[in-house]
Amino acid sequence: MGRLVVFEGVEGAGKSTQLRRLEARLTRAGVTCRSFREPGGTAAGDRIREVLLDPAMSLDSRTEALLFMASRAELVATAVRPELDAGSVVLLDRFFLSTYAYQVSGRGLPEVDVIAANRAATGGVVPDLTVLLTLPFADGMARATNRGPFDRMEQSGNAFHARVESAFAMFATSEWQATHPEAGPVVVVDAAGTADDVEQRIAAVVAEQLPEHGARLELIA
Amino acid sequence: MGRLVVFEGVEGAGKSTQLRRLEARLTRAGVTCRSFREPGGTAAGDRIREVLLDPAMSLDSRTEALLFMASRAELVATAVRPELDAGSVVLLDRFFLSTYAYQVSGRGLPEVDVIAANRAATGGVVPDLTVLLTLPFADGMARATNRGPFDRMEQSGNAFHARVESAFAMFATSEWQATHPEAGPVVVVDAAGTADDVEQRIAAVVAEQLPEHGARLELIA
Repeated sequence: MGRLVVFEGVEGAGKSTQLRRLEARLTRAGVTCRSFREPGGTAAGDRIREVLLDPAMSLDSRTEALLFMASRAELVATAVRPELDAGSVVLLDRFFLSTYAYQVSGRGLPEVDVIAANRAATGGVVPDLTVLLTLPFADGMARATNRGPFDRMEQSGNAFHARVESAFAMFATSEWQATHPEAGPVVVVDAAGTADDVEQRIAAVVAEQLPEHGARLELIA
Repeated sequence: MGRLVVFEGVEGAGKSTQLRRLEARLTRAGVTCRSFREPGGTAAGDRIREVLLDPAMSLDSRTEALLFMASRAELVATAVRPELDAGSVVLLDRFFLSTYAYQVSGRGLPEVDVIAANRAATGGVVPDLTVLLTLPFADGMARATNRGPFDRMEQSGNAFHARVESAFAMFATSEWQATHPEAGPVVVVDAAGTADDVEQRIAAVVAEQLPEHGARLELIA
């Protein structure tokens, strides 16, 4: 049985960059490693993504949440679960915390419904580790600018994005983590500084949380 | 606050025909009445339906269930709930019982996950009455033939359809109904005989279950 490691954090925190760096580091250490990003290139996921990101599409918040969960179900069933069964370390760019931030905190859907839909999507797969990258809000927005025109999610307005931002701060608290077992273990990593600095911090966290790979990770710089 | 009446039953039981007949009868009786069928002509629902029925699309059972629920969420939010709030009688061709039959009994998904996803989709809207049309299996298959080539759902094989069929028989039992409050009141109506016979039986059930419209329904033949 493999291990599921998720990268979470606000826009511009460096999730994708750090995911690629950890993947390269694990691979250099000889650990079999696969990374996915929803919708993960599944045929169904790509079709769902078109609907979700279409700026002209009107979607109720519940429809939006369930479409994200449908895409997640396909990724888990066809990619994540088979790779975990094969013993790989699976790295995901966003998972349950992003769902909570955008659908519960952002859109205002009842927590119980979003948690239930997530469970229906994953069949109970819970991350072994979530690396939560934290950054002051203004820094993240500055890093995230100039990435092209806004899609439907990015058009949702400042108040929405402020609620999402607050959610990620809430996830860093032990109170929230203690009452949300579906999130699995969450470790906060400061995303300030250079990418090399952050990579070192993450490698240390992963070595500690995935002790079966820790020795090999420490052998490579 | 209006009333939600759902038509359920196996393929060929006459759901669509009887729904149209009840709609005409209620309209003649002066009752404001709207009928919908998932995906209900919403832009999102139509796009979701294309994915669900595409014979070439590979979908995990959980993805399929969540896509149906996304389509349902959009229909409930944009059509069913506003019409109920306006006081209409809303008629639906299939709803929770079909989800249970196809996703739990047919596909084998855990009941708890399907019920939870349905709740996330509906926000707790429960039918005031479900008319469950029952018919011996062979009669239904005979009525359902020659409706064109099979779509992705219809291609699922005989064993799948036998499980779906059994589910509809199970829904008719008081044991099942007593343990599934999310289904709301279910009344079994024998779908054997002429369409006129069945229409009369349904009108009597509706007059009893929706007493505020009962007197007006009885005035028209």
